[in-house]
Amino acid sequence: MVTNSARLEYQFHVFLLNYLLPALDGDAKTMNFLQEVVDIMLAYIVESFDRSTKVIDFHYPNELLQRNNWELSDEPETLDDILISCRATLKYAIKTAHPRYFNQLSTGLDMVGLAADWLTSTANTNMFTYEVAPVFVLLEYVTLKKMREIIGWQEGRGDGIFSPGGAISNMYAMLLARYKMFPEVKEKGMSSAPRLVAFTSEHSHFSIKKGAAALGIGTESVICIKADERGKMIPSDLERRIIEAKQKGYVPFFVSATAGTTVYGAFDPLMAIADICKKHDIWMHVDGAWGGSLLMSRKHRWKLNGVERANSMTWNPHKMMAVPLQCSALLVREEGLMQSCNQMQACYLFQQDKQYDLSYDTGDKALQCGRHVDIFKLWLMWRAKGTIGFEAQIDKCLELSEYLYNKIKDREGYEMVFDGKPQHTNVCFWYLPPGVRYLEDKVEKMKRLHKVAPVIKARMMEYGTTMVSYQPQGDKVNFFRMVISNPAATFEDIDFLIEEIERLGQDL
Amino acid sequence: MVTNSARLEYQFHVFLLNYLLPALDGDAKTMNFLQEVVDIMLAYIVESFDRSTKVIDFHYPNELLQRNNWELSDEPETLDDILISCRATLKYAIKTAHPRYFNQLSTGLDMVGLAADWLTSTANTNMFTYEVAPVFVLLEYVTLKKMREIIGWQEGRGDGIFSPGGAISNMYAMLLARYKMFPEVKEKGMSSAPRLVAFTSEHSHFSIKKGAAALGIGTESVICIKADERGKMIPSDLERRIIEAKQKGYVPFFVSATAGTTVYGAFDPLMAIADICKKHDIWMHVDGAWGGSLLMSRKHRWKLNGVERANSMTWNPHKMMAVPLQCSALLVREEGLMQSCNQMQACYLFQQDKQYDLSYDTGDKALQCGRHVDIFKLWLMWRAKGTIGFEAQIDKCLELSEYLYNKIKDREGYEMVFDGKPQHTNVCFWYLPPGVRYLEDKVEKMKRLHKVAPVIKARMMEYGTTMVSYQPQGDKVNFFRMVISNPAATFEDIDFLIEEIERLGQDL
Repeated sequence: MVTNSARLEYQFHVFLLNYLLPALDGDAKTMNFLQEVVDIMLAYIVESFDRSTKVIDFHYPNELLQRNNWELSDEPETLDDILISCRATLKYAIKTAHPRYFNQLSTGLDMVGLAADWLTSTANTNMFTYEVAPVFVLLEYVTLKKMREIIGWQEGRGDGIFSPGGAISNMYAMLLARYKMFPEVKEKGMSSAPRLVAFTSEHSHFSIKKGAAALGIGTESVICIKADERGKMIPSDLERRIIEAKQKGYVPFFVSATAGTTVYGAFDPLMAIADICKKHDIWMHVDGAWGGSLLMSRKHRWKLNGVERANSMTWNPHKMMAVPLQCSALLVREEGLMQSCNQMQACYLFQQDKQYDLSYDTGDKALQCGRHVDIFKLWLMWRAKGTIGFEAQIDKCLELSEYLYNKIKDREGYEMVFDGKPQHTNVCFWYLPPGVRYLEDKVEKMKRLHKVAPVIKARMMEYGTTMVSYQPQGDKVNFFRMVISNPAATFEDIDFLIEEIERLGQDL
Repeated sequence: MVTNSARLEYQFHVFLLNYLLPALDGDAKTMNFLQEVVDIMLAYIVESFDRSTKVIDFHYPNELLQRNNWELSDEPETLDDILISCRATLKYAIKTAHPRYFNQLSTGLDMVGLAADWLTSTANTNMFTYEVAPVFVLLEYVTLKKMREIIGWQEGRGDGIFSPGGAISNMYAMLLARYKMFPEVKEKGMSSAPRLVAFTSEHSHFSIKKGAAALGIGTESVICIKADERGKMIPSDLERRIIEAKQKGYVPFFVSATAGTTVYGAFDPLMAIADICKKHDIWMHVDGAWGGSLLMSRKHRWKLNGVERANSMTWNPHKMMAVPLQCSALLVREEGLMQSCNQMQACYLFQQDKQYDLSYDTGDKALQCGRHVDIFKLWLMWRAKGTIGFEAQIDKCLELSEYLYNKIKDREGYEMVFDGKPQHTNVCFWYLPPGVRYLEDKVEKMKRLHKVAPVIKARMMEYGTTMVSYQPQGDKVNFFRMVISNPAATFEDIDFLIEEIERLGQDL
């Protein structure tokens, strides 16, 4: 066996490890290598916050494919080549921490959150049992309880899980609502239930329909409720559609209200919706992926009044709380429901004769088997900031968006997509370049205006100076949707954005 | 506005940032803080590979809750407190890199993979569009193509996605199979389809049933096919059950064959299953979450012969290839199907008038909206090792398991759960302590034996010397399931495991 062993160890060294750990005497080489990678990252971090650097060094896909050798081959590369790849990857990455990166609901880079994510990678484990993730399982328990307290559920009771993103959290909620009403669907499938219908506003996130498609409910059974001009669900329309569905013999089982819509940042009137759900005995879910974090702010949490009456809530700390991606929680009011809905009692993973309290094994209430550790970054950031730190961060972003709104609402060349102060940090507006501004033919004007935002956006990316999102909505042509979740942004960055839009768009 | 701004900046500093970036002049403090965290991690890494340290410093949940202050409060903590929390978290973590940690299918810690995961956290972006993740989207494209080539699909054509774990990958496959046969289910729900039935072996992973429950198909519509004594699906039983289902008027739509079962490490006979699927026109999925990586080994890939005839395959590089958690791929033979199955065309995210080739925007074919970047660690490890490096690593683990098998198969006090050389690294065995070994009453013997593995396992954790999994299966009482996926393990570690089991179990 010795010869065999020696041969294997040789292969091991040559092919696998470049003499890094676990190679014998690999300590020093490993430390050097990891430190070099850390130095590359530290330089990138400092650069990311520097306004004189580009947000993006943009290249078209075919061009980027040719700018570096990205291919995989049979033969190993040297560690120097690996470091070159690390540098190239960061060179062409978007600097999502950049104070002028406004493109997504998730922006910014928190230093404590980042440190926590590095540590999570180093611990390299799975959330399914206390056995393999004792600390992380406890921290999830502590944090979910705290979040439920903030929602306003008595003594923080209830259940919940961190899931891979808001879409999956919303899908969980729909699954639980169905199970609550028709538990037999778990074994017998949808054919054992009557036709189920779900309700959500026309401004809600597409994941509600995606979930319905996956769960075998069907997108046609998701009834879109009218929203008012500010993007809020109209409760009277909800009730009308529920009654209509019942008259057709369908069974309303799920209402997903949105706290912070993707485009307008609108908050559905949760209290009125809760009344309707109670009256008709329907599961009330609140999709607060984007707006849920406003619960952390004493100044803004009134926008979610009524959330305490919901049966479940999606809340993504990776958005407005700037926790590194990804970190999404589903909170559920009823205890034990997730477990009975999802458990399959696989005895090879969830042994019932282990030495510790098995209620800490969370795996069987999940849809996933292995589950990534998403809790530590949120927990550590919470420790570093305290609740009041998150509050200050959120309040600041909202103040910046109000500043933007005040600045452009009467400015020449701008038109707001909806009237009034934004409720979240979403500020939706058109910029009308001089060449479009005075056109009298309205059809021609809209046609031209529709092309303005995409061109300005493409130019922003080519110059690399800033990034902001745009989209059409209903019959409204392309407009900018500015959002602020990056704690690095300042009033001066808002000023810059306005100037940059005008600079890049004035000739259109 | 200046006063306002000044007040905000003050809050910002005091509550949020502890003067870390993006605070003005935060560079030096940030570098120091991150370097301190790195130093804590580097020390942990070196310790993890040191056999003289414990795999785990085990404490019961209530005890662990009291060993540290894990609570979240309103007030911020100092950076020194944060560093203390980092140290405490690692102190009580499982050392999953430890050469004697055999507890899960995912073990080990690859230094290049770890560096890549740190870099991924630093880049902090999302996979949904090329716009926000240009490099990572391209690397996913390159890597999925390479994986499809290795499966044997012509020119690597097809589709795929990295998903949050094997359970979700399997659910994707089932969803695609349903969509392929009854696309109207997407809009109209399961009531528009006849009763669908899926087939998988009795030894398959519980995620197949979990997926069926979620998708509204129902667990009773998952028909469990008999496995032989080695845990392999019996093709004749599969065909019999398909015919039986058809006779009842059900529609067989999905067969999930397993390449590497969780407990026995069995490979279902894919060629025979492919023949049956072809004959009956059923989607063939291969759940290779655990065994798929053997495709990287010229010596072992024959065990998956026939996989090239599958319609889809789950393959988790985070298991046998030791990529950091998590990294799971679903590969699909047909191009375009994922997109049409899952797309909702949300124009606010997937604008159709962007300046670049939109085929690189992968978000609308996913069930998720935001999607974590899981590709970079696999890609960078592949560059560092080459295909032959992964091959050597896999071959070594299989050689170690054969060594274990040879060592215990005729050893006194051991009994193998199934005969013959293991096909994967799973070695399943009972250890019979002297007090149990010679019992004549068979019922009493089994009753006593059932309790042996849990007690030895609990002692392993209390001593912290090693960790290995156990479970019952069918009518078989608790047995050890040894698996080897940790490249740090050596022949000596296998010897140690045997000695440790005997040391800890001799008095039972």
